[in-house]
Amino acid sequence: MTESDQTPHHGTPAGNTPADGSTLPASVADLLKRNVDGLVPAVVQDATSGQVLMMAWMNDEALHLTLTTGRGTYWSRSRNKLWMKGEESGHVQRVRTVRLDCDGDTLLVRVDQTGPACHLGSTSCFDTHLLFTDEDSGRAGDSAGTTHETAEEAAQ
Amino acid sequence: MTESDQTPHHGTPAGNTPADGSTLPASVADLLKRNVDGLVPAVVQDATSGQVLMMAWMNDEALHLTLTTGRGTYWSRSRNKLWMKGEESGHVQRVRTVRLDCDGDTLLVRVDQTGPACHLGSTSCFDTHLLFTDEDSGRAGDSAGTTHETAEEAAQ
Repeated sequence: MTESDQTPHHGTPAGNTPADGSTLPASVADLLKRNVDGLVPAVVQDATSGQVLMMAWMNDEALHLTLTTGRGTYWSRSRNKLWMKGEESGHVQRVRTVRLDCDGDTLLVRVDQTGPACHLGSTSCFDTHLLFTDEDSGRAGDSAGTTHETAEEAAQ
Repeated sequence: MTESDQTPHHGTPAGNTPADGSTLPASVADLLKRNVDGLVPAVVQDATSGQVLMMAWMNDEALHLTLTTGRGTYWSRSRNKLWMKGEESGHVQRVRTVRLDCDGDTLLVRVDQTGPACHLGSTSCFDTHLLFTDEDSGRAGDSAGTTHETAEEAAQ
């Protein structure tokens, strides 16, 4: 998660819709299975490299803004506010595709990421902790994001 | 999510550790930031293609089993049980790497997936609903998972 560069965008409580009519279309809203806080997890993936960059949360308004502005916008659970990714840091996300999974409870957002996605300066938020690696794995597809990682624990 | 092929593996409540001593090492457990149900979301990605296949949830025991058996194992929130992915369907996941994000609250599991990951028969659970696409996007990296998708809504 990268909630460190968030700034207030709207003050609408999670799951609520704004009063100005700019709501998520019913054809999308009806597909969503939200958690008890009105949120859906959003997996964010680099559209070019395929690297998974971060995971964040969206309420209806964050999804609506993402779909209509083409900029990755999320709900900060820690600050209880909407935040457009990169609003302060400049590390914005141009959205290429947004998909919803078969159960309607997880989003996949493929983006062009400007700068590092992680507030720690790494390309991906998943560069921090490597918990497990299969030592037999020498596959080409296993190269993404391994540059700066630290093997915290090989539990096997 | 693909909770349709889950079967009981252990009956341990979410977040609890088994009594046989086969617990998650403290060096890993101490890094985890679990939700109120003791769970952490796990993004599952194909290790070769980079395609995001599904999102599921792990408690400590599911993570421990994943790390020690090398098979993707999750906590089913709907059935309140552990399930090894593919236990019934045969669509198992050989785990290549497991990473934890900077905040300790999301896992990324890269796997060799046998058969389709989605219980609907698709390669990915995210093949079902395309909510948004940037029509200017003709990038090579945007090709994964587009074969069977349906444009449910272009909200922009």
